[in-house]
Amino acid sequence: MTSSELEFWFDFASPYAYVSAGRFEDWMNSAGINVRWMPFLLGPVFQKHGWATSPFNLYPLKGKYMWRDVERLCKRHDLGFNRPDVFPQHGLLATRVALAGCDEDWLPAFCRRVFHREFGLGQDISDKQTVLDVLEGLVDNPAYWVKRAVTAKNKKALVDRGVEAEQKGIFGAPTFITPDGELFWGDDRLEQSIEWILRRR
Amino acid sequence: MTSSELEFWFDFASPYAYVSAGRFEDWMNSAGINVRWMPFLLGPVFQKHGWATSPFNLYPLKGKYMWRDVERLCKRHDLGFNRPDVFPQHGLLATRVALAGCDEDWLPAFCRRVFHREFGLGQDISDKQTVLDVLEGLVDNPAYWVKRAVTAKNKKALVDRGVEAEQKGIFGAPTFITPDGELFWGDDRLEQSIEWILRRR
Repeated sequence: MTSSELEFWFDFASPYAYVSAGRFEDWMNSAGINVRWMPFLLGPVFQKHGWATSPFNLYPLKGKYMWRDVERLCKRHDLGFNRPDVFPQHGLLATRVALAGCDEDWLPAFCRRVFHREFGLGQDISDKQTVLDVLEGLVDNPAYWVKRAVTAKNKKALVDRGVEAEQKGIFGAPTFITPDGELFWGDDRLEQSIEWILRRR
Repeated sequence: MTSSELEFWFDFASPYAYVSAGRFEDWMNSAGINVRWMPFLLGPVFQKHGWATSPFNLYPLKGKYMWRDVERLCKRHDLGFNRPDVFPQHGLLATRVALAGCDEDWLPAFCRRVFHREFGLGQDISDKQTVLDVLEGLVDNPAYWVKRAVTAKNKKALVDRGVEAEQKGIFGAPTFITPDGELFWGDDRLEQSIEWILRRR
């Protein structure tokens, strides 16, 4: 990690990660901070907590509040919002594609498109055709990337990513990690994570 | 509630409520917003979630993060911070005193003093003598208020307050509720709750 690189850990199922992904680009550019997109799966983390699904489903009052809160945030940041029918969505294939493309220029655009379909348009992102559609226009050969996403090597890389998340103390998404290892959890800590980096330059 | 009154729902055990209580006064004064201090107990809410203690204790990674986050916030807002040995603390008597004094001028000062002892100095707030000490200098007769706090009427008022919290959809602390019933959860939503009121004037 360079001294001005912020790790953005996200799960495609997280509405708050959608908000962050939709709003941080201008901030980062003006601050001269590069974002390293770190896709991972929250499911295994939740399972270790004994949760069979998202806490927003387990605790209805909290879930009801979350959707209202996200709706307000999207309005505040001028992001589209349509609540999807299914929550949390099954983003495994999209996550694997993102991980396979972790060193590619199209990664940020791919992730934003997935998020936009899911929370901006309220669409299902789980099926293969949707992932192919999202890749269309971003890469020369969408089918190649979907195939590469499901190789044993890339599947293992996603498992390893989960181990790395746990080792870094990550328990939710989005999580921002600064070059000196400071962890900030939640879209509402984005500004603080940027300030943290700027103060240490 | 007047059109410029913000309800501040808090549990003395909440570190984030300490942060809010320590920082909102100037904001509110300059915005012309009155704060209505609403003490309540989170314990019954947590029990309904099936939690025997704070989620910060149930989920160690989350708890570890929370203390670091609170430490950073206190530094940011120039508030003292010392992590108490016991968490969550038993604030029942202090809460009952706060409720008994809900119409008194000394209520905000009392609450801030309790929070300061607990999270600013890291002291225990559970025993009767501490509550009496906190009241000293604020009221003519501290013993009177401690006695009034434990009357059947005031005990029932605290139970009723819990019912009201649930009816309003409250599931954590701090929670801010605007005059038109909009709910904001967490210290990090304080600014949004103020903006919400100002935009509707």
